[in-house]
Amino acid sequence: RFGQAELEDLVGVVTGLAWTEVGGELLTIEGLMMPGKGKMTVTGNLRDVMKESISAATSYVRSRAVAFGIKPPLFDRRDIHVHVPEGATPKDGPSAGVAMATAIVSVMTGIPVRRDIAMTGEITLRGRVLPIGGLKEKLLAALRGGIKTVLIPEDNAKDLADIPANVKNGLEIIPVSRMDDVIKQALVRQPEAIEWDEAEYVPVAQGDESAGVTAH
Amino acid sequence: RFGQAELEDLVGVVTGLAWTEVGGELLTIEGLMMPGKGKMTVTGNLRDVMKESISAATSYVRSRAVAFGIKPPLFDRRDIHVHVPEGATPKDGPSAGVAMATAIVSVMTGIPVRRDIAMTGEITLRGRVLPIGGLKEKLLAALRGGIKTVLIPEDNAKDLADIPANVKNGLEIIPVSRMDDVIKQALVRQPEAIEWDEAEYVPVAQGDESAGVTAH
Amino acid sequence: RFGQAELEDLVGVVTGLAWTEVGGELLTIEGLMMPGKGKMTVTGNLRDVMKESISAATSYVRSRAVAFGIKPPLFDRRDIHVHVPEGATPKDGPSAGVAMATAIVSVMTGIPVRRDIAMTGEITLRGRVLPIGGLKEKLLAALRGGIKTVLIPEDNAKDLADIPANVKNGLEIIPVSRMDDVIKQALVRQPEAIEWDEAEYVPVAQGDESAGVTAH
Amino acid sequence: RFGQAELEDLVGVVTGLAWTEVGGELLTIEGLMMPGKGKMTVTGNLRDVMKESISAATSYVRSRAVAFGIKPPLFDRRDIHVHVPEGATPKDGPSAGVAMATAIVSVMTGIPVRRDIAMTGEITLRGRVLPIGGLKEKLLAALRGGIKTVLIPEDNAKDLADIPANVKNGLEIIPVSRMDDVIKQALVRQPEAIEWDEAEYVPVAQGDESAGVTAH
Amino acid sequence: RFGQAELEDLVGVVTGLAWTEVGGELLTIEGLMMPGKGKMTVTGNLRDVMKESISAATSYVRSRAVAFGIKPPLFDRRDIHVHVPEGATPKDGPSAGVAMATAIVSVMTGIPVRRDIAMTGEITLRGRVLPIGGLKEKLLAALRGGIKTVLIPEDNAKDLADIPANVKNGLEIIPVSRMDDVIKQALVRQPEAIEWDEAEYVPVAQGDESAGVTAH
Amino acid sequence: RFGQAELEDLVGVVTGLAWTEVGGELLTIEGLMMPGKGKMTVTGNLRDVMKESISAATSYVRSRAVAFGIKPPLFDRRDIHVHVPEGATPKDGPSAGVAMATAIVSVMTGIPVRRDIAMTGEITLRGRVLPIGGLKEKLLAALRGGIKTVLIPEDNAKDLADIPANVKNGLEIIPVSRMDDVIKQALVRQPEAIEWDEAEYVPVAQGDESAGVTAH
Ligand SMILES: [Ca+2]
Ligand SMILES: [Ca+2]
Ligand SMILES: [Ca+2]
Ligand SMILES: [Ca+2]
Ligand SMILES: [Ca+2]
Ligand SMILES: [Ca+2]
Ligand SMILES: [Ca+2]
Ligand SMILES: [Ca+2]
Ligand SMILES: [Ca+2]
Ligand SMILES: [Ca+2]
Ligand SMILES: [Ca+2]
Ligand SMILES: [Ca+2]
Repeated sequence: RFGQAELEDLVGVVTGLAWTEVGGELLTIEGLMMPGKGKMTVTGNLRDVMKESISAATSYVRSRAVAFGIKPPLFDRRDIHVHVPEGATPKDGPSAGVAMATAIVSVMTGIPVRRDIAMTGEITLRGRVLPIGGLKEKLLAALRGGIKTVLIPEDNAKDLADIPANVKNGLEIIPVSRMDDVIKQALVRQPEAIEWDEAEYVPVAQGDESAGVTAH
Repeated sequence: RFGQAELEDLVGVVTGLAWTEVGGELLTIEGLMMPGKGKMTVTGNLRDVMKESISAATSYVRSRAVAFGIKPPLFDRRDIHVHVPEGATPKDGPSAGVAMATAIVSVMTGIPVRRDIAMTGEITLRGRVLPIGGLKEKLLAALRGGIKTVLIPEDNAKDLADIPANVKNGLEIIPVSRMDDVIKQALVRQPEAIEWDEAEYVPVAQGDESAGVTAH
Repeated sequence: RFGQAELEDLVGVVTGLAWTEVGGELLTIEGLMMPGKGKMTVTGNLRDVMKESISAATSYVRSRAVAFGIKPPLFDRRDIHVHVPEGATPKDGPSAGVAMATAIVSVMTGIPVRRDIAMTGEITLRGRVLPIGGLKEKLLAALRGGIKTVLIPEDNAKDLADIPANVKNGLEIIPVSRMDDVIKQALVRQPEAIEWDEAEYVPVAQGDESAGVTAH
Repeated sequence: RFGQAELEDLVGVVTGLAWTEVGGELLTIEGLMMPGKGKMTVTGNLRDVMKESISAATSYVRSRAVAFGIKPPLFDRRDIHVHVPEGATPKDGPSAGVAMATAIVSVMTGIPVRRDIAMTGEITLRGRVLPIGGLKEKLLAALRGGIKTVLIPEDNAKDLADIPANVKNGLEIIPVSRMDDVIKQALVRQPEAIEWDEAEYVPVAQGDESAGVTAH
Repeated sequence: RFGQAELEDLVGVVTGLAWTEVGGELLTIEGLMMPGKGKMTVTGNLRDVMKESISAATSYVRSRAVAFGIKPPLFDRRDIHVHVPEGATPKDGPSAGVAMATAIVSVMTGIPVRRDIAMTGEITLRGRVLPIGGLKEKLLAALRGGIKTVLIPEDNAKDLADIPANVKNGLEIIPVSRMDDVIKQALVRQPEAIEWDEAEYVPVAQGDESAGVTAH
Repeated sequence: RFGQAELEDLVGVVTGLAWTEVGGELLTIEGLMMPGKGKMTVTGNLRDVMKESISAATSYVRSRAVAFGIKPPLFDRRDIHVHVPEGATPKDGPSAGVAMATAIVSVMTGIPVRRDIAMTGEITLRGRVLPIGGLKEKLLAALRGGIKTVLIPEDNAKDLADIPANVKNGLEIIPVSRMDDVIKQALVRQPEAIEWDEAEYVPVAQGDESAGVTAH
């Protein structure tokens, strides 16, 4: 069953798409949240560029926390572990960025990810989705793996012309340009924004601070 | 006696199965828990992928702690050392993951591991058991080493067709798909779940926090 | 759209200019500020010299904070992440220093960066702009990418003689010698200086300290 | 005198046995305990596997502390330095594990080590003694160095058949299977166990903790 | 203008002299002091030996702080950044040690460095100036760069015999043997020593301490 | 003057002896003590074995502190920097160990080192002096450098037979077997032991601790 679409909608489990010279394959990304102190652990034989994509995904989610209904202090009171089986295979590249961000949003909101969706795309700190390579191989892998819907970067939409008709017929392929679109498609329900007034929360002596400040 | 099944049911000692081009062998995994501050030490000439499998096993156990009857604060008040003799031999690969998780559950619950059982399988953060290589060599090593029962990944069950009859007759081979099955087979008695209400325990100023939060 | 001038004036997003043997290209630099404890994260497959240019840019901004209207304690209460997509491409060299400093000033003041401006130049701790290589390739990339204004180091102004007329006609090229000039051109409005009296703010026992000090 | 048996029974100084292709030799292991905060320093041009054997030896001693009469908080209030002269010679391998553990027990209990004893054996976290290589060369070195008694792993007892009679006559060779046997032979007097009730010692709010726990 | 003597006397900016097989050149050393916690940052593509020379220079200044009028607690309440443009060029060697020390004294006292002076020399922890290589190339670079005065190690004075007359006529060359001489020449005014009574300042329970001490 | 015996008796400055295939030379070892928090800095292009010799020397001095009249808490309230000019030359090997220990004793006691003495010898944690290589070359360097007295390891005394008579006549050569002998010869006056009662000093709740302990 491994290497296939999931059987259930799971919290924190996202299907990415990898690509090597011998073809594409499904890449399960597992996020897990535990009581903790804000530590991030990443495992799965990941090389530096993929590790950095998790770092970028994390900062994106942190900076957009209230829009996703995540209370900011949660980042200091939970540990997160992102793991990419299978451990024997080295993995690199930035194209799992949107899947990483989706996994983090899912574990922090507790909202499951649709089991029949896969996605590929580099992420920026502001949640833009950048183009990736190996589109054809990735779509073939998605089809083989029983995936129904694939999110691809809008800047790769032009490459769909080269994809065989049977692949395009067998999959719903949705070009996306921003993480907002990804979240909308990937989670089984939408996160609700909260209001968050940092001044009320952060234990800062505002009085002292403003004492030394005068706007010119 | 080293390289053979244990003579007693021990807390924290699990028999894994390793595989190299010259054959399979038993791999003793030793977990030890000490009063401490949450430090994890791993030794035994372990390469990165095996170290990562211990990290994944640890997060799995942490996230399932209450189901195993482990009070979550124990993770901050104990140090754990996982050691894999013999120190002169480098060891790698993810396939000892389920054995690592079993060792950690055993030391943290104080429940001994059955001395005549061996196991192989990669672990995910959610406790799924992923397939491994070298099944035949590993089973031969188990038989030679006096093991009675071997837990293998369910996804490897199809490979049993290639295993000689005398091996299959000499061993009880149990395919497992989740850590729950592993724990059920490997520990001499089952851990009992506890209830744990984090809100009562964690010293957080809930009042302040909710002050700044309004659901939309 | 990636690799083109931005469509909006964004806070923390600056267009730099990179140069390799195969030509120049636009380099998006993304700064992001989050509630935190003063941690700086840098990602995007950056090599050491580019990482150091971010360090120099940060110290420049810290030392000039009040002139930019940034309250100094903010450096301890925010985390900053500087990311340079595309993660698959290694990036090195000091010439993005002025762009890094501009991104940091923008995120810390909340003032957007003009979307149609690009810049190149090494930065010193005092905000001097040092010359760079590859001017021609960089200007060509700016023109191709829809940039209107390019800031270049004053010490490179002499190299403009070698630049084709159509490039010089298609771009407003502004030589700059100091970060002050860069900020003036790049931000959509100017930061306003604040007064900051450290003695009132920093919780230091001044009495004790002066007790042991006598000027000779 | 260096490379010979010690002239006195010293606290923390243990004679190990090393083996290279050019023969065996005595290995002085020096443990030293100082007021501190629980830091462990290891020096002497040690490679990773020997460093790990010190780590395993330390965890063994920590987990058995009360049996050795060592108050557990001592591990947090003392620094330990393990040094293996001569610094110019790289040293590796796990076979000094039992000597490392003996040195640590000696410094923490203040009980001297017999000056005319040498030992070899890998240690597990539970104090089992695993077999080593180079037995013949090691015994020859012990004889040359004026050692009277040598502790060897029980699993190496079978190899004694190949040892020349004069070596076996000149040395008392004692096979051991557990650290308990090693301590019995190596220290000039036996450590006495203490009772230790962690609950009375550790400053934990037991009330709060049990509040959130209910056994099922 | 870069690579030339400065136009103003600046705080923390010192001109060093570097030397490679293709000749000598001016090396701008920039020190910057910021409110902080005692962190030292060094950038500019510096190799280990040059980094160590900054460490030695820092310890020299710390140990002589009161003689320079620097209150010792300042080392814990400020961060210092030492940067050596141009970031693209690797830099190594100990010969910028006296320039590093001068930069640190200048930023910590706020006294500017003379703009028309350059210097070369390794520094010891006690402020001795040790000889350097490449004297001729360095002096030529100083002359070309518009420098008026060059401080060289006294132990290099014997090498002046080989320097062309026009170079010696165009520069005031001052051999120095100690940092005191360097500071005297390089700063626009002299630092004034302070008195500092650590016992009055450091928050130590002197009573408790002396309780356990008796001189013999 | 560099590479010669010192002109004064200095605190913390010790002359060691180094040896390479091109001959011996004097090695100045500089120790410096500053107000701090127990940090040890080592610089001077030192390789790992020489760094470890400083670590061993430090532990030796810490463990013998009261015998040298050093109050143990000083180790937590001072930083020590050990530097070995000239920074451009890599240095390795354990034979400067006794010189390192002498430098540390000197800076912590404030007692100067005799300017006309040099020394060589590896140190153990208990202050034994182990033999070194290159005796002849080192003694020649000492003679050339104006040294009057050289301390050598007792185990090297047998090698004096091969040393030319003029060298032995020109130097007072003193074989030493323990650091006590080294300190006696090298410092201009002897440190005086203090009494130190840790129980009175360390802020430990002895009552709580003994509550949980019962000797058997
Ligand atoms: Ca696969
Ligand atoms: Ca990729
Ligand atoms: Ca084996
Ligand atoms: Ca394996
Ligand atoms: Ca495997
Ligand atoms: Ca590109
Ligand atoms: Ca560049
Ligand atoms: Ca030897
Ligand atoms: Ca060995
Ligand atoms: Ca240059
Ligand atoms: Ca020399
Ligand atoms: Ca040496």
